[in-house]
Amino acid sequence: MTLLTGEKAAHFRRADAAGWKVAGTTSPNPPVGCVLVDPADGGVIATGATEPPGGAHAEIVALRRAGERARGAHAYVTLEPCNHTGRTGPCAQALIEAHVAEVHYLFADPFRPAAGGGDRLRDAGVRVQGPYLDLRADGADSADWSTSTGIYSVEAWLCSVLRGRPHVTLKLARTADGFIAASDGSSQWITGPAARARVHADRAHRDAIVVGAGTVCTDNPRLTARQPEGTPYPHQPLRVALGRRNLPRERYAMFQGPPEQSLHLRTHDIAEALAELWARGVVDVLVEGGPTLIGAFLAAGIADRLQCYTAPAVLGAGLPGVHNDPQHPTTMADIRRLHPRGLTALGPDVLFIATALTPIPTPPRKA
Amino acid sequence: MTLLTGEKAAHFRRADAAGWKVAGTTSPNPPVGCVLVDPADGGVIATGATEPPGGAHAEIVALRRAGERARGAHAYVTLEPCNHTGRTGPCAQALIEAHVAEVHYLFADPFRPAAGGGDRLRDAGVRVQGPYLDLRADGADSADWSTSTGIYSVEAWLCSVLRGRPHVTLKLARTADGFIAASDGSSQWITGPAARARVHADRAHRDAIVVGAGTVCTDNPRLTARQPEGTPYPHQPLRVALGRRNLPRERYAMFQGPPEQSLHLRTHDIAEALAELWARGVVDVLVEGGPTLIGAFLAAGIADRLQCYTAPAVLGAGLPGVHNDPQHPTTMADIRRLHPRGLTALGPDVLFIATALTPIPTPPRKA
Repeated sequence: MTLLTGEKAAHFRRADAAGWKVAGTTSPNPPVGCVLVDPADGGVIATGATEPPGGAHAEIVALRRAGERARGAHAYVTLEPCNHTGRTGPCAQALIEAHVAEVHYLFADPFRPAAGGGDRLRDAGVRVQGPYLDLRADGADSADWSTSTGIYSVEAWLCSVLRGRPHVTLKLARTADGFIAASDGSSQWITGPAARARVHADRAHRDAIVVGAGTVCTDNPRLTARQPEGTPYPHQPLRVALGRRNLPRERYAMFQGPPEQSLHLRTHDIAEALAELWARGVVDVLVEGGPTLIGAFLAAGIADRLQCYTAPAVLGAGLPGVHNDPQHPTTMADIRRLHPRGLTALGPDVLFIATALTPIPTPPRKA
Repeated sequence: MTLLTGEKAAHFRRADAAGWKVAGTTSPNPPVGCVLVDPADGGVIATGATEPPGGAHAEIVALRRAGERARGAHAYVTLEPCNHTGRTGPCAQALIEAHVAEVHYLFADPFRPAAGGGDRLRDAGVRVQGPYLDLRADGADSADWSTSTGIYSVEAWLCSVLRGRPHVTLKLARTADGFIAASDGSSQWITGPAARARVHADRAHRDAIVVGAGTVCTDNPRLTARQPEGTPYPHQPLRVALGRRNLPRERYAMFQGPPEQSLHLRTHDIAEALAELWARGVVDVLVEGGPTLIGAFLAAGIADRLQCYTAPAVLGAGLPGVHNDPQHPTTMADIRRLHPRGLTALGPDVLFIATALTPIPTPPRKA
């Protein structure tokens, strides 16, 4: 959030935090956050975030909570208010009818049917500023990226709309010498409790977790999102196994529980699998391995976000995080550079996050 | 340095910074730093650091600079003042004769002939506090290790005395998906200018740089320590190639320049190579690869410090940082845990440092 400074940054940070709370529960809609601020003293009147599909958008939630106090308020929204009459009516119109005085939005809405909310607000005489940021593959990285507050809650959704497929995060958890498991396949536990807790919290904000069929056979993971003491998080992502291997549902932990919470996609084709998930309304996917699947996503050029957990430990030999496919020899011309976005110590371990697209400041259009 | 707080920490930090400036030029002696402080106002009277072998120790340098102002001063030294009459006479005696009132030292001197300086000072009526820290393999990590100021300049020397062989740092520079080079062996440039500048500055504070003979053949590296604009650093480490492959001196860049600055050790035996370097007075070694050599050090259980540079980039396939020797299969019982010590953003890249031994606070003996 260091791309923005001062009071506006604080309001957007609060709106983004509201969006993060609902991330994973809003797809196919974006997890937007909205804050209504009293211009007299900068105090927060009300906060809102996108409800599950069929429910209200963030602005509507905040407006309802504010009631009459919305009149003359300034709204900070992480995404341009929508302009289309879907299940809930356009947010732009609701902000106009509530007599909100100013609307600041972080990112433009790239989704054609919904776009144009900013203009509609302007036409109605509301002061509008936005977009402040643009999500792009080029552009310089912030010099202080390692101390910034990280990734915005709407980025995965924005990326998915731009790509026309789910946003893909590849997770790697490895020793400092680069192994994700010992030679015998055992990997419990390379990282410590703090890193593992972060992985579970991360799962609780995703639409789907994807693993290779080989990993299912070898590790038989549950793939649920659990709090450190074992309690499941309220939101559980769809658990997806990818690959043509036979996986009897009764044999594997990931297929237990409600049948609609797990899925076996019998394909090796990454694009085909993502298209199938996209058709089911999956916007944001976390790929947890193993090495063959991670390698397949990389070979397909599909890595929107990398989350690399590194433990200060060495194995000397074992299973590398990416299957080194001799069929795909590389030269340095094949290197794909991402944008560094986050660096966090988790107990003794480190989490390094990079993204293919990064927010670049945009000169905001003024009303 | 967050293990210590307050004014003492600031004095020790200054002493340690003086030690770091001379690191690489003092072996077989430790790169010690000393600060003389005026107890009346906490102001620095003089700073000193170990001179090259045959020259003065840090305390003597500081005392000479202070002259008469040393009387009644408080000394902060990163290592217990020595008690043996070597080339320069014992530092403990010099501090007594200069009428220094208090001596604080960070680590005890584990080197038998030199130890006992603290007691000698106490016997002469000087108030002594130390050691404040003890270098150990066990002990809990500092909760805020990632924001601490890192590693003390005397740690490599202390470790070498405890181990009876040179201190070994393994360097890895890799993509986020774990490759140190593309499949064709090319690796220029995985990390950016800031990380590369850090590697060169690091070389300038080592006694020796070690690479495998295979790396010499493949990459023909110069292995000199150069400043970003190309100027060599004043101190150049010994350049060492390890392995039984034939390496005609005239063919490879690392053997150019004065003959005493480079060396080919025709062995695969890590312990034998380190013993040979130790006999030559080498205390602190930086191992820069390639994967076979890094793997050999790990298989031999020799990794006192890890320096992992990670670039936010992916290759998808290539050369892993550690040769995955099928002769050495591992299980999770083989994992060796190190202590996290440093986390730094270098441009877009990240440097994660871990050590086998870490400073643990010691209840200081009071006079």
